[in-house]
Amino acid sequence: MAKKKIGIIGAGRIGQLHAENIIHNFNNVTIKSISDPYLDVQWANSVGIEHTYKDHTSILNDTEIEAVLICSPSHTHSKLIIEAANQGKDIFCEKPIDLDPNAIKQALSVVEKNKVKLQVGFNRRFDPNFVQIKQHIVKGEIGIPHIIKITSRDPEPPNPDYIKDSGGMFLDMTVHDFDMARFLAASEVTEVYARGAVLVDPKIGEQGDIDTAIITLSFANGVIAVIDNSRKAAYGYDQRIEVFGSKGCTQAENNRQTNTTLLTEHRVQTDKPLFFFLERYKEAFKDEMGSFLKCLIDDLAPSVTGHDGLMPVLIALAANQSMKENRPVSLGEVG
Amino acid sequence: MAKKKIGIIGAGRIGQLHAENIIHNFNNVTIKSISDPYLDVQWANSVGIEHTYKDHTSILNDTEIEAVLICSPSHTHSKLIIEAANQGKDIFCEKPIDLDPNAIKQALSVVEKNKVKLQVGFNRRFDPNFVQIKQHIVKGEIGIPHIIKITSRDPEPPNPDYIKDSGGMFLDMTVHDFDMARFLAASEVTEVYARGAVLVDPKIGEQGDIDTAIITLSFANGVIAVIDNSRKAAYGYDQRIEVFGSKGCTQAENNRQTNTTLLTEHRVQTDKPLFFFLERYKEAFKDEMGSFLKCLIDDLAPSVTGHDGLMPVLIALAANQSMKENRPVSLGEVG
Amino acid sequence: MAKKKIGIIGAGRIGQLHAENIIHNFNNVTIKSISDPYLDVQWANSVGIEHTYKDHTSILNDTEIEAVLICSPSHTHSKLIIEAANQGKDIFCEKPIDLDPNAIKQALSVVEKNKVKLQVGFNRRFDPNFVQIKQHIVKGEIGIPHIIKITSRDPEPPNPDYIKDSGGMFLDMTVHDFDMARFLAASEVTEVYARGAVLVDPKIGEQGDIDTAIITLSFANGVIAVIDNSRKAAYGYDQRIEVFGSKGCTQAENNRQTNTTLLTEHRVQTDKPLFFFLERYKEAFKDEMGSFLKCLIDDLAPSVTGHDGLMPVLIALAANQSMKENRPVSLGEVG
Amino acid sequence: MAKKKIGIIGAGRIGQLHAENIIHNFNNVTIKSISDPYLDVQWANSVGIEHTYKDHTSILNDTEIEAVLICSPSHTHSKLIIEAANQGKDIFCEKPIDLDPNAIKQALSVVEKNKVKLQVGFNRRFDPNFVQIKQHIVKGEIGIPHIIKITSRDPEPPNPDYIKDSGGMFLDMTVHDFDMARFLAASEVTEVYARGAVLVDPKIGEQGDIDTAIITLSFANGVIAVIDNSRKAAYGYDQRIEVFGSKGCTQAENNRQTNTTLLTEHRVQTDKPLFFFLERYKEAFKDEMGSFLKCLIDDLAPSVTGHDGLMPVLIALAANQSMKENRPVSLGEVG
Repeated sequence: MAKKKIGIIGAGRIGQLHAENIIHNFNNVTIKSISDPYLDVQWANSVGIEHTYKDHTSILNDTEIEAVLICSPSHTHSKLIIEAANQGKDIFCEKPIDLDPNAIKQALSVVEKNKVKLQVGFNRRFDPNFVQIKQHIVKGEIGIPHIIKITSRDPEPPNPDYIKDSGGMFLDMTVHDFDMARFLAASEVTEVYARGAVLVDPKIGEQGDIDTAIITLSFANGVIAVIDNSRKAAYGYDQRIEVFGSKGCTQAENNRQTNTTLLTEHRVQTDKPLFFFLERYKEAFKDEMGSFLKCLIDDLAPSVTGHDGLMPVLIALAANQSMKENRPVSLGEVG
Repeated sequence: MAKKKIGIIGAGRIGQLHAENIIHNFNNVTIKSISDPYLDVQWANSVGIEHTYKDHTSILNDTEIEAVLICSPSHTHSKLIIEAANQGKDIFCEKPIDLDPNAIKQALSVVEKNKVKLQVGFNRRFDPNFVQIKQHIVKGEIGIPHIIKITSRDPEPPNPDYIKDSGGMFLDMTVHDFDMARFLAASEVTEVYARGAVLVDPKIGEQGDIDTAIITLSFANGVIAVIDNSRKAAYGYDQRIEVFGSKGCTQAENNRQTNTTLLTEHRVQTDKPLFFFLERYKEAFKDEMGSFLKCLIDDLAPSVTGHDGLMPVLIALAANQSMKENRPVSLGEVG
Repeated sequence: MAKKKIGIIGAGRIGQLHAENIIHNFNNVTIKSISDPYLDVQWANSVGIEHTYKDHTSILNDTEIEAVLICSPSHTHSKLIIEAANQGKDIFCEKPIDLDPNAIKQALSVVEKNKVKLQVGFNRRFDPNFVQIKQHIVKGEIGIPHIIKITSRDPEPPNPDYIKDSGGMFLDMTVHDFDMARFLAASEVTEVYARGAVLVDPKIGEQGDIDTAIITLSFANGVIAVIDNSRKAAYGYDQRIEVFGSKGCTQAENNRQTNTTLLTEHRVQTDKPLFFFLERYKEAFKDEMGSFLKCLIDDLAPSVTGHDGLMPVLIALAANQSMKENRPVSLGEVG
Repeated sequence: MAKKKIGIIGAGRIGQLHAENIIHNFNNVTIKSISDPYLDVQWANSVGIEHTYKDHTSILNDTEIEAVLICSPSHTHSKLIIEAANQGKDIFCEKPIDLDPNAIKQALSVVEKNKVKLQVGFNRRFDPNFVQIKQHIVKGEIGIPHIIKITSRDPEPPNPDYIKDSGGMFLDMTVHDFDMARFLAASEVTEVYARGAVLVDPKIGEQGDIDTAIITLSFANGVIAVIDNSRKAAYGYDQRIEVFGSKGCTQAENNRQTNTTLLTEHRVQTDKPLFFFLERYKEAFKDEMGSFLKCLIDDLAPSVTGHDGLMPVLIALAANQSMKENRPVSLGEVG
């Protein structure tokens, strides 16, 4: 049986990561083509991708190519989804689909019309720790979930220039946590209350953004969730989750470089949490691609849907409004 | 030098605990008298307390007695503080002083007028774990605090009958966490947002109370705190704290009976958190009494003041109102 | 029912500890008398012991006194056991009974002849961690035990002067570990191989002693045990045990002052192990006394017998010979 | 600059692993050829290896090939090292070089004569945990090392048929631990005392082998090491190391699949240690290959030398003799 052929649009850090994950781990598909205006052709050759383009059009017009990965800058995602769907390609698209929910909805309607598959790149759902948390819930180990707690703190704030176009912390960073809360609650958010502050760097405040927040989410099934964010954890990338239920509690601790402990006269010392998101979520990036390729080959429904791409953006917008007006905001007000 | 003599009003579980802690650990004072309508006289004799009464009047009238511990039912606290203060006694009073802030304020004004000492029984401030957390903050180990997270879950819900007169979960249970948040933030709460739910037992809801909550507190110094409560953690008494700051993070885990681990074909297993609050806070109860006795003998200001007794009640009332009206409530609205 | 009366011979650190443990925790017996050539009479009065003596004779002659605790210097133990047994007293004796096995055997024969109870002060058997380890074994959680590993490292070496009369590290320090290995193996040692070294302090070597060792023990039931000792662990008192069996493994970690963790840019840091043996084995000292008093009152066989006092001394002597001759030594050679 | 070309002799599980590690992670060399009597040609094609052979001769005769990986069955290693060295190839050879020290010495002399590089596959030296342990020692964090403790327990015993030709547990399994002890002690073993037993499976005993052992090693620099082995740890692959020194202690715990904890009414539960050695030492296998390739390209001395291949075999032989004669055996007796 011939391998399915796929193309990649966008060959920056994430595009290259997905390409190498596929080449090294999944030999049931072939990456036929890759495009990027600033393509590193030498890299593409070294990993054995045959066709390279500056523009994505050749990929979308190639009838041999059955699916595309959209790894280009965020503002191009919804437009590229529409183009690719109209060409009948199945699609893996990096998050976010768009910062504007209407643009997302439009893209999703084109996807639906063309009956193509779309998986959105919320990679953290595939992190082995969080997969185990989900399994504990699904298997009933903790009974009925009552409280979800997500700690999500970056090791370093982004460049202030980046912040300007990011849509703000809730759309840029917390959006992952909103997705995770939905994934674990297995329900939809009904109301959001967000308390934000500028405690890390006043320059972030000057851009109209925040760098620290506590967000409370209410879910339709009664679960309450709380997310705490900071743009700068001095000790590394802090990514922990706890779900508390009627029969118990499941917790995921941070990952560390080693499991060593040093005991001296002065202290007992272990490794810090892994610092860099590509290292922390290395397995997750690989496994989300495996999931997408499996849905292509076995003709399954994607594990992270277009709807899953829309909802966290709506929650983020509700969080923005909540913070601005200092009141709980229902999802209906923004959706 | 003669030992100071003290009296104890109320000889239930907590009164007996304080008595025995003093007798076993602090021989710089003598418990001369104890009163309780239902006094276990045999117990009092066995620990060597000379004078026993059904009524507290004889204690307050005894000019030899310099200080009293008020360990009677909560609704008697503010009245007894006033009586004791008017007799010039220094006072240790179990929490809460009262559920009505006006009654607290009245009691505090009598205390102030009589220039007696008053320490309120927020024992958790003396827990070795939380003392260390506080030390980490005070020593600057985590820089400027940004986020305080308190997990406080009881192992079993109280009897529904108890709930009726308890003032509700925020006044009965979370009040400890409100005190802890103030203690760690070293600042006053300005605003409260509380999200509550009945997820543990519908009978609690029938009493008009909740059993699960997420409460967000904003402090004058910019700190944001979040408390999560449940009336029933299947795995034991869950008492954890985390304080995150500009330079790091300090965390306190639960205490366990032993530090053993069992590894089998089926699992890796450790002890559950200590179940019973008297066991969990055993050291804290002893150390808060040591602190009170030290302030008596060395004529120091109490470590947990009357003001510290008032503020958590105000925060609890604000939380009640926030939950009822589903909006953030400023402390000014209830104070 | 009248309380049993007991006497204490020797009121140094350990004698006082046992006295206070009894007074504070066990009101089913009365300490009638205490003796010590250098008795701190003020302390004795403060804890309410009625009769104080410089010499132990009055205690042994007091027919009201049913049992004695022997807490005097080690070289007096076997002689005092004989005297006390001949007076018909039940006996709790601190370890070691004697450094000379013949003296121990003689003392045990007098105990047996007089049909009095004798419990030896191997307190570690009552440590909650190690009790749990034992329970895991007894309940079959780890199947048939194969390997016992004991890590036992002191925080500070003793004074060189002390070492001179200590009988050497194996008799002075490892004797506790030999007892623990027997307790956990539930079998008798057949052969010992000891490898010792002077790595901590050459002055210890000048006294003819060692400060570091690995000892392998073979048991009659097939269990193999290994003990590693050091006279100086820079990070505190290191007391860990692991038992590995056909179905799993049970491990006891060190105890720490608090369960806090500090995370900073530089490190993740927890508390060091407790440093001082009285703090580390606080519960164990209390519980061994509870066990002795229970065997008095309920007329039970002691939990740590005279035979348990003899065997670790024999193992230590075998270890000494093994080290000297650099070969495995069977217990039969020294017993 | 042209990439160096290498060949692989032996394409079983380990040969394929090294091939894929090189292809996916190190694009500074090219695997030109691979040989195996039972070669999976489809696999070789799928990973892009150009030339495939049943016999290794073509690889050794290929003057373009500068280095070979010897991944064939153990009994062929020494012979293949000699052939490859005589053809001037640099060599990476899986452990053990041979079970007969004379065969090893002969192979090493041919390597030396031909001035080719030889790295032996003691992959565990590259495990991130153990690399960190080594770093702690080298940086002086624990002062002067006194005691090394290695826990090394397999998850499942090998097939009895395998055992027959394995050389016994010390040569087959403990040889890795002997290497690790040498690596960490940075010194040579002078004496070995081994205590072995058949506790896991009597069938192993019927083959004349053991399945459980405690081995004490004395090093020239004064370090004492103790290794405990079992052929079957019910809970998984148990690979822990502890090094204790004058200023502290460094410990490596097992690796687990996730960092999650489940707390229920019944227990607190974490993941078991990773079960399979290829998963446990995944990073180590990759990093040892990186180290070999770096020494090829930068013309460095190999990190694990031929001498490092010889010594653990001598230690294993001394352990065998020690167990047989139940006495400590000096390395001089076997070397």
